[in-house]
Amino acid sequence: MPDRKTFPLNAWYAAAWGHEIRHELAPRTICGKDVVLYRTSAGVVTALEDACWHRLLPLSLGRLQGDEVVCGYHGLIFNADGRCTYMPAQKTINPSACVRAFPVAEKHRLVWLWPGDPARADPALIPDFHWNDGTDWVGEGGTFYSLKCDYRLVVDNLMDLTHETYVHAGSIGDEAITSAPFEVTHTDRTATVTRWMIGIEPPPFWKAQLGREGHVDRWQIIHFQAPSTVVGDVGVALTGTGAPEGDRSEGVNGAFLAAITPESATSCHYFWNFVRTFRTDDQELTSAINRAHVNDGHGVYDQDHAVLEAQQKALDRNPRLPFYNLNIDAGALWARRLIDDMIAREEAARAPQAAAAE
Amino acid sequence: MPDRKTFPLNAWYAAAWGHEIRHELAPRTICGKDVVLYRTSAGVVTALEDACWHRLLPLSLGRLQGDEVVCGYHGLIFNADGRCTYMPAQKTINPSACVRAFPVAEKHRLVWLWPGDPARADPALIPDFHWNDGTDWVGEGGTFYSLKCDYRLVVDNLMDLTHETYVHAGSIGDEAITSAPFEVTHTDRTATVTRWMIGIEPPPFWKAQLGREGHVDRWQIIHFQAPSTVVGDVGVALTGTGAPEGDRSEGVNGAFLAAITPESATSCHYFWNFVRTFRTDDQELTSAINRAHVNDGHGVYDQDHAVLEAQQKALDRNPRLPFYNLNIDAGALWARRLIDDMIAREEAARAPQAAAAE
Amino acid sequence: MPDRKTFPLNAWYAAAWGHEIRHELAPRTICGKDVVLYRTSAGVVTALEDACWHRLLPLSLGRLQGDEVVCGYHGLIFNADGRCTYMPAQKTINPSACVRAFPVAEKHRLVWLWPGDPARADPALIPDFHWNDGTDWVGEGGTFYSLKCDYRLVVDNLMDLTHETYVHAGSIGDEAITSAPFEVTHTDRTATVTRWMIGIEPPPFWKAQLGREGHVDRWQIIHFQAPSTVVGDVGVALTGTGAPEGDRSEGVNGAFLAAITPESATSCHYFWNFVRTFRTDDQELTSAINRAHVNDGHGVYDQDHAVLEAQQKALDRNPRLPFYNLNIDAGALWARRLIDDMIAREEAARAPQAAAAE
Repeated sequence: MPDRKTFPLNAWYAAAWGHEIRHELAPRTICGKDVVLYRTSAGVVTALEDACWHRLLPLSLGRLQGDEVVCGYHGLIFNADGRCTYMPAQKTINPSACVRAFPVAEKHRLVWLWPGDPARADPALIPDFHWNDGTDWVGEGGTFYSLKCDYRLVVDNLMDLTHETYVHAGSIGDEAITSAPFEVTHTDRTATVTRWMIGIEPPPFWKAQLGREGHVDRWQIIHFQAPSTVVGDVGVALTGTGAPEGDRSEGVNGAFLAAITPESATSCHYFWNFVRTFRTDDQELTSAINRAHVNDGHGVYDQDHAVLEAQQKALDRNPRLPFYNLNIDAGALWARRLIDDMIAREEAARAPQAAAAE
Repeated sequence: MPDRKTFPLNAWYAAAWGHEIRHELAPRTICGKDVVLYRTSAGVVTALEDACWHRLLPLSLGRLQGDEVVCGYHGLIFNADGRCTYMPAQKTINPSACVRAFPVAEKHRLVWLWPGDPARADPALIPDFHWNDGTDWVGEGGTFYSLKCDYRLVVDNLMDLTHETYVHAGSIGDEAITSAPFEVTHTDRTATVTRWMIGIEPPPFWKAQLGREGHVDRWQIIHFQAPSTVVGDVGVALTGTGAPEGDRSEGVNGAFLAAITPESATSCHYFWNFVRTFRTDDQELTSAINRAHVNDGHGVYDQDHAVLEAQQKALDRNPRLPFYNLNIDAGALWARRLIDDMIAREEAARAPQAAAAE
Repeated sequence: MPDRKTFPLNAWYAAAWGHEIRHELAPRTICGKDVVLYRTSAGVVTALEDACWHRLLPLSLGRLQGDEVVCGYHGLIFNADGRCTYMPAQKTINPSACVRAFPVAEKHRLVWLWPGDPARADPALIPDFHWNDGTDWVGEGGTFYSLKCDYRLVVDNLMDLTHETYVHAGSIGDEAITSAPFEVTHTDRTATVTRWMIGIEPPPFWKAQLGREGHVDRWQIIHFQAPSTVVGDVGVALTGTGAPEGDRSEGVNGAFLAAITPESATSCHYFWNFVRTFRTDDQELTSAINRAHVNDGHGVYDQDHAVLEAQQKALDRNPRLPFYNLNIDAGALWARRLIDDMIAREEAARAPQAAAAE
């Protein structure tokens, strides 16, 4: 990992979809930390350091015995708190024998993990991701595990949608995006890019969703929550029906959801979904939208995937080259600044009482 | 290779099975040194540095001409002492032109190589491995070439057999191993772990070998010779027939043999055998025991293989984490101490007259 | 890349065959620099830095629009001079926005690229490679792209043909090469090795080309032009017909051509051809000679390929071992000296006004 931190540790990061974690050992690497996840018989998700206290064998290579994990090498047993409850061939257990237990919480259909200082793991800090709850908004997402790029490149990608015009020409891309003005606002934890395209010809995807003829007003309101969740409120409505003023009744509304979790400094897990409030019972449409995003290399997110990994390779080859910025980068730059601020605050807090977050 | 030495060079290491070395060029990497082995027409095994004096091409890519090696690039010829006997297009041969010849000896069906200072290569120091001679003890072993772990992890593995309970449950593993007491003794070159399990239900493998009903006394007497050979005297006898006192006549006796050779700091060659003194003419049993150890991922040594490589990967990812030890590690800790002593003595001897062993 | 430079930057290097560069984006890495090549609608070959000014995405992943390159991420456009002519969503273009344009020239059927200081890119310095023009000399060559060795190992290989005796036994190899004397001459940019073998039995390849019985005089006149082109004037004529004195009319004459371009410090692109002045209309012979060189691992250059990559691997494993030299290396040593001189002059020139060539 490079000297310079690229992500804060004191934050909630999506580690898995809730449905992926069952009563079995599931390894993940989150922010450079090897973790083993499992659901106890009471249904609670647990996350332990994935390395036995004794000889480092990944606990995920062992097995569950009730709600405890048995190491696959010498049989040490750890409970859901990470405390060792059994050592082979000895009656007294070293009281300091344990593996780290990470704070985890299940919310909005995702398992969130806090890789930093457990004392600071306030559940109230879990990013607002209610669009993913499966109630008002409906959709079926997926994950790019181990996407080979710095998670911030995904944030950059989502904070500037002009790339749709070039990367996604023919589906959601449109020259109108490039020419429409946008504005950026921010708080100390969020940054929002708002772009309205008034009276345009709808691009193919949206035209099909709207199912009506005529020009539209199209909106892209992208909301970043530091360090790494993005929600994009997107849609179109017939021009002149008041969407810019707040009446979206003559339109269709969707949202793209992204929770991007650093795996290492140069790889990440990208949990995505695309949800909508229209035709919510249409399972066929749900599947079609899923396939439009990821489809064996042909979906729009597959296109981003290729660009993002190529960009990371280029960065690896040109480590000292600075990024030059365009006007369109204003949203991404705010996101980066908020991330940098989180890292800086964390580093400052660590300085006196070293390594608490490690 | 890391700064800290992980193996002594002044030692005999198994480089190949005797039957593997014929009148043809066979490359091996031993303790980080590229070596080419071959058998001369007189039947003597020879080991030369596997890099031509002239342009470094591996000599193993060339060919034998009589008992000399012809380089496959420019035709330089080296004799079994490593001396250059022919140079293309010139009549006089640079008298200093040579490749290194390593001391080798064939004993106990293995080819042993001394990668260090040739002046110290005393054949009397070859580890006692007579169980492998194929006379009193019978068996058919094999090799894991380029096992991706520090050779000392294999030593650790063999010096503590409680791992059988977890890694080899259902064959030789048994809860009794974990609960039985053991003792560790040592000399300046050897360490021995002795464990007797009295009056136990024999595990499946041994029950089948014994072929008699009843409880047994089971023994595991593991003998380490620094730096890297291990012989395990193992077996069971009917309880009460005097095995702990020395009378094994009502039992069955086997021995596992391990010669573990560093390839690099993080990989090794593991020459193994399992020999026995019972039903020595039963070739079918010999084959069955071989398959029980290595069988396309399903043998007990295949199980160790998976654990050892996973452990090395974990060490690579957590380079600074110290090992924590349990009581069961006493034998492995003595083995490590003897290895460390050998390395320290070698380093001390090198200090004044640098690099003689290189 | 290691600290020590292994190639000069102020030189023309073959980057592609002319016929390979069409009106489409073709990536290459030349001397560690990622380059995208294309031919404009006017037929002129253009070479730009293969990384967008904005976010480093390789421009080769974008597309051509007329004679300009559109980046595949955000649509920035660069003209054939490397200047940015379009930025998304903004009217004024940052005047410093550009990617590097490399001097290129098409000559002798190859595209030559100058990776160093453009001000010094004098077309008169393009190596004389007229044998490749397809007029007097006829042949059909090829390229080993990304050959995994330092380009100088290929130069070494070609400057000493005694290796033919060992690497290419049975085709062009011959004991006579090894025993024949040779002489080396040089200028400040070239080195020439001249070897005549008088009255020898022709090796299989040349016997077939000559199509006449009898002993021959064979010549190998190898001409190196710094930093990395080699032309070998080779052939045989019936002994006693005056070839050594200059009359080759009773013989057959060929030339091997090599333009070797560093890709990195340890890999290169090897553009080769074998041309001849006899039976120039015989396309079947042209194809047969091509196949004799590269043929799915069985051609003579395939044999060199295997040796060169094995040699580089050996160098990587023995980084401090010096090369020892034989008499046969005299030509290669002169080539190396001329290369070193070019690098030293370039470094000296850079010292005061740093990094102009970067």
